[in-house]
Amino acid sequence: MADNLVAKIFKEHMVGGSLEPGEEVALRIDQTLLQDATGTMACLQFERMGVDRVRVPFAVQYVDHNIIQLDHKNPDDHRFLQAFAAKYGIHFSRPGNGICHYLHVERFARPGATLIGADSHTTSSGALGSIAIGAGGLDVALVMAGQPFQTPAPKVVGVELTGRLSDWVTPKDVILELLRRRGVRGGLNRIFEFYGEGVKTIDVTGRTTICNMIAELGATTGIFPSDERTREWLEAQQRPDDFVELAADEGASYDEHEHIALDELEPLIARPHSPGNVVKVEEVAGTKVAQVCIGSSVNSGFDDLAVAAAVLRGKVVHPDLVMTVTPGSRQILDSIARTGVYSDLVLAGARMLEPVCGPCVGMGQAPPSDSVSVRTFNRNFPGRSGTMNDQVYLTTPTVAAATALRGVITDPRELGEYPELPEAPANPEVDDRQILAPAPPEEARGIEIPRGPNIKPPPEAPELPDSLTCTVTIVVEDDISTGDLAPDGVEVMAYRSNIPEIAKYTFRRFDPDYHEKAQRMAPGFIVGGHNYGQGSSREHAALAPLHLGIRAVIAKSFARIHRRNLLSQGILPLRFKDEDDYERFEQGQKWELPEIRERLERGDEEVPLRSESGEEITLLAEFSPREREILLAGGVLRMLRREGEGQPEGAERVSGEAER
Amino acid sequence: MADNLVAKIFKEHMVGGSLEPGEEVALRIDQTLLQDATGTMACLQFERMGVDRVRVPFAVQYVDHNIIQLDHKNPDDHRFLQAFAAKYGIHFSRPGNGICHYLHVERFARPGATLIGADSHTTSSGALGSIAIGAGGLDVALVMAGQPFQTPAPKVVGVELTGRLSDWVTPKDVILELLRRRGVRGGLNRIFEFYGEGVKTIDVTGRTTICNMIAELGATTGIFPSDERTREWLEAQQRPDDFVELAADEGASYDEHEHIALDELEPLIARPHSPGNVVKVEEVAGTKVAQVCIGSSVNSGFDDLAVAAAVLRGKVVHPDLVMTVTPGSRQILDSIARTGVYSDLVLAGARMLEPVCGPCVGMGQAPPSDSVSVRTFNRNFPGRSGTMNDQVYLTTPTVAAATALRGVITDPRELGEYPELPEAPANPEVDDRQILAPAPPEEARGIEIPRGPNIKPPPEAPELPDSLTCTVTIVVEDDISTGDLAPDGVEVMAYRSNIPEIAKYTFRRFDPDYHEKAQRMAPGFIVGGHNYGQGSSREHAALAPLHLGIRAVIAKSFARIHRRNLLSQGILPLRFKDEDDYERFEQGQKWELPEIRERLERGDEEVPLRSESGEEITLLAEFSPREREILLAGGVLRMLRREGEGQPEGAERVSGEAER
Repeated sequence: MADNLVAKIFKEHMVGGSLEPGEEVALRIDQTLLQDATGTMACLQFERMGVDRVRVPFAVQYVDHNIIQLDHKNPDDHRFLQAFAAKYGIHFSRPGNGICHYLHVERFARPGATLIGADSHTTSSGALGSIAIGAGGLDVALVMAGQPFQTPAPKVVGVELTGRLSDWVTPKDVILELLRRRGVRGGLNRIFEFYGEGVKTIDVTGRTTICNMIAELGATTGIFPSDERTREWLEAQQRPDDFVELAADEGASYDEHEHIALDELEPLIARPHSPGNVVKVEEVAGTKVAQVCIGSSVNSGFDDLAVAAAVLRGKVVHPDLVMTVTPGSRQILDSIARTGVYSDLVLAGARMLEPVCGPCVGMGQAPPSDSVSVRTFNRNFPGRSGTMNDQVYLTTPTVAAATALRGVITDPRELGEYPELPEAPANPEVDDRQILAPAPPEEARGIEIPRGPNIKPPPEAPELPDSLTCTVTIVVEDDISTGDLAPDGVEVMAYRSNIPEIAKYTFRRFDPDYHEKAQRMAPGFIVGGHNYGQGSSREHAALAPLHLGIRAVIAKSFARIHRRNLLSQGILPLRFKDEDDYERFEQGQKWELPEIRERLERGDEEVPLRSESGEEITLLAEFSPREREILLAGGVLRMLRREGEGQPEGAERVSGEAER
Repeated sequence: MADNLVAKIFKEHMVGGSLEPGEEVALRIDQTLLQDATGTMACLQFERMGVDRVRVPFAVQYVDHNIIQLDHKNPDDHRFLQAFAAKYGIHFSRPGNGICHYLHVERFARPGATLIGADSHTTSSGALGSIAIGAGGLDVALVMAGQPFQTPAPKVVGVELTGRLSDWVTPKDVILELLRRRGVRGGLNRIFEFYGEGVKTIDVTGRTTICNMIAELGATTGIFPSDERTREWLEAQQRPDDFVELAADEGASYDEHEHIALDELEPLIARPHSPGNVVKVEEVAGTKVAQVCIGSSVNSGFDDLAVAAAVLRGKVVHPDLVMTVTPGSRQILDSIARTGVYSDLVLAGARMLEPVCGPCVGMGQAPPSDSVSVRTFNRNFPGRSGTMNDQVYLTTPTVAAATALRGVITDPRELGEYPELPEAPANPEVDDRQILAPAPPEEARGIEIPRGPNIKPPPEAPELPDSLTCTVTIVVEDDISTGDLAPDGVEVMAYRSNIPEIAKYTFRRFDPDYHEKAQRMAPGFIVGGHNYGQGSSREHAALAPLHLGIRAVIAKSFARIHRRNLLSQGILPLRFKDEDDYERFEQGQKWELPEIRERLERGDEEVPLRSESGEEITLLAEFSPREREILLAGGVLRMLRREGEGQPEGAERVSGEAER
């Protein structure tokens, strides 16, 4: 049978389950990735698994998110992570070394490998032909402890690329075009596989951009074949042995089809406040702009920065706006410094930031009040920039550079001829000295892990009771992001190791007192719309509600990673059978899930939910057998310890637990 | 008569008063400087003066402090300042263009000029033979409005330099040596004038370091003669016409004398928590270090960074610590990029930060808990780094680089031969395109100034009443810094345009509830020890207490700029006649200044202070006639409006005002 590339790699790594639609598959994982904003929680949960060394062939801890360091909290996290990595067999990329996705593609991703990362944009490594999937920290910790990764058998969307991009049009426009067609829910439980003769016209950096933002479709991941471009990349990275040619079999089939004619694409831009609000640049051209930001976990590659520099060379950023530039990694920073790209940007007036996530995760560079910011980032959820009434547009480096020059949103084709770009150094300075190898096992045992005062043990859910009565703590709209549950930005993200503190910010955008109310109402429900929990992989979006006493989320649909995080933490993710029932819910109501334990045990796929007045509706309990076990136990960690003693030492008691 | 250089420039600019000891002198000012953390308040007060254009030959607004931008507040400030500058005739240096002191020395400072800046390190420009003095924002605004600058006639300390610095010893060691000898109060009301054959061995960048940190002595300023080194500098900066040779007359005398034999100096370091705690590096060598920071408003010059790069070239920052590097300006950043210094630092693992004040003012890069940070900065007051229990050492770039390599505090002489340094580009990229010229007057009238929601009008004091009874709101120790009154760091400094908010942080280090208590007790006194108000020039350290209802500060002695800021805002700075009386004070006591108005009017230099139980002590009211006028009126702005109507539109009513 002719397999597509996804099926080939899945089959190579399958250790259980089935690839039939609707089934769950268990994959052997080759690599794991943590970053500092999700890493401490993953590590704290890993510690509870009683494993003394990681059991995955390659594990790496990056530090790229929380590095503004307003006070002791984040440097304490970094110190914890460095010692933890040395002790447990994890590579450690030092703070400021680069953005995890760029670094992973440069130094570690390889064709045919499987990678699980505690970051939703882990998908970036699909650029090199890896199956690279974002997950919550606990799910990554499980893989680090030697467990396979469980995932629903995905639908594979074949995206055929033909032709070649025109001048000024970039690989970013390919992914913006997919978002234009499908919106932010258009990739749920799907993997996007790129093929066709247009593929070879896009280099690995461009493929990285596309695979990174595949996450914005809600997709499981994206993947490119491994071809000549891949070989060139791996050779430049001094990793020729990592190259294998990989592609779909001749005549392979896909579950769904897309075709993108590269030469027909035009410059695109996503309007506020969703990466799915994509229009042609010409539709918003002329809009006055106060800020332009180039770089982040997408569009921080050499070519991205080189084209911006070429547009600005000898000119100056428009006086009415401020421009920032973020390179993706230390290697890219060095390359732009050596080729004059850096100087061109500096002299044009760009503010050159460190190679870290930076403003893309609300780490500084908030725009002024009531102003437009044009960014090459991947997300523009409201308030993510740090400014509450922000107006963030997402676009390509060419549009951003033209806009920086003119002061208004500008179609770069207006600038005329495409500029001459300096070539990226054929042999970039490949240097892994900023990635520390773990200590050898005999030495590792002696390592003490320093725990700053802000590092607190994560909560665990109680076992699922026979019946569950909860109060509706809040009813929220469609497309709630994990940033609504555990916000971005320096101040809140400093608490990524401290769930009781971060929980104070849950739903603050809607109700500043939600934290107190939820704890008072505990145990509680959250009621949501479609695509509940979209965005990042942060499990804090499940741990914070858990701390507040939330036992179930009832929604029209869930984003993939967040649904999984809820499950792993023992919170029930239930769907409406009839979406109109959403209208019945109001804050403060009490509803019961009668005999929920028994129903889950016997595999019911529909469960009743009863109001105090006897009203009854039906919810969908679409869980795999393993998911049912997890929910009954009160989360993955409890399930793993089921034979054991119960509440582990140091786990936090969650709100409302006493009543149950 | 043979004049020293200070006297020559003062005489050239004197428009009133006298240079006799104890007298006040009024100086004509050639240049003013604002930065963004002090600029908005200065501008808001300037607006109340009813002047439609600055009346000083050259005024410039830099943006270098508040540029992390967690939310809308600081970018709103920058937008306000840009429009204000365009409207009122001020040059505007765009955010990220560089640190004000480096930029001013590069582009604007000139021999024989007078400069007043709303930043305590304005003194840096003494490197080029300017009389450059730091002042509160209101005092700078007065100069911008065309008033002369009033200052006590200074004592001049002649510092004779002989010989030449040994390898590894730097100009920073010269100023550390002065701090070692004299401590942080050793320069009060003094100007340090450097002379002697050793002067020519120190270039303008080194002189900038020395003049910058002269502020740490509590000095009014420091100055170097204008000589061949000055000429070279101005030529490289394409400003040959700004050069004039300037030096003390042959046989000039000084009020005090210091002699530093440069060849006898050894590497020095200031221990926590004062720039005055200076010891030889060998005394603390071997101390384990978690962080090394090079750069800030001192030691961010080309040579400073080049020597660090040379030490680290081909090596790597010790794995147990993190290193940051901050260039001083866009020009320096470009120079290090072109000469390979930048790449050497990047590859060694240094985190390259923007050319802004950064961690030196607590803007990120806080060190981990309970750890040592070694910095080339100018201040190490407790908590200024952002970490409450910090242990910050101040030292030179050579010591810092050696420490970064070894992981422990290291005397760089241990590294052996001094490395070959790349030469600074003979013709650096001189580029003023990031400094926007103001709009022409006819266009300026039409400019609207956008005011973000965080920009609030500053408070004004009421007129001084006949008698003044106040409650002691707090009794504090020696060497209280302006950072204790209006703290550093991103979160608090974001409120530099909002006194009611910043006042919530006043004395928080000693009492988290001080804000509420002071307002409840208003009108209030603060009782302090020696050197009250040391450190930065921020007038927020006077405006915040004013907002809280403070009417007088009684201390053993005052730092120069803060005493002036209190006066300008209508708060009485009174000294103990007998320092032992300090012991009599406790929080909550009520004391009266009987007939204080009359006593100040008639010029009394001693005034009684009476307790409720009838106890009486004597305070010193050492005010010039003009200072008496200001205090009687309730601050400078009220004095200027004395003929007018009283409370201006929009001025905030201060706490406790109703009772008086």
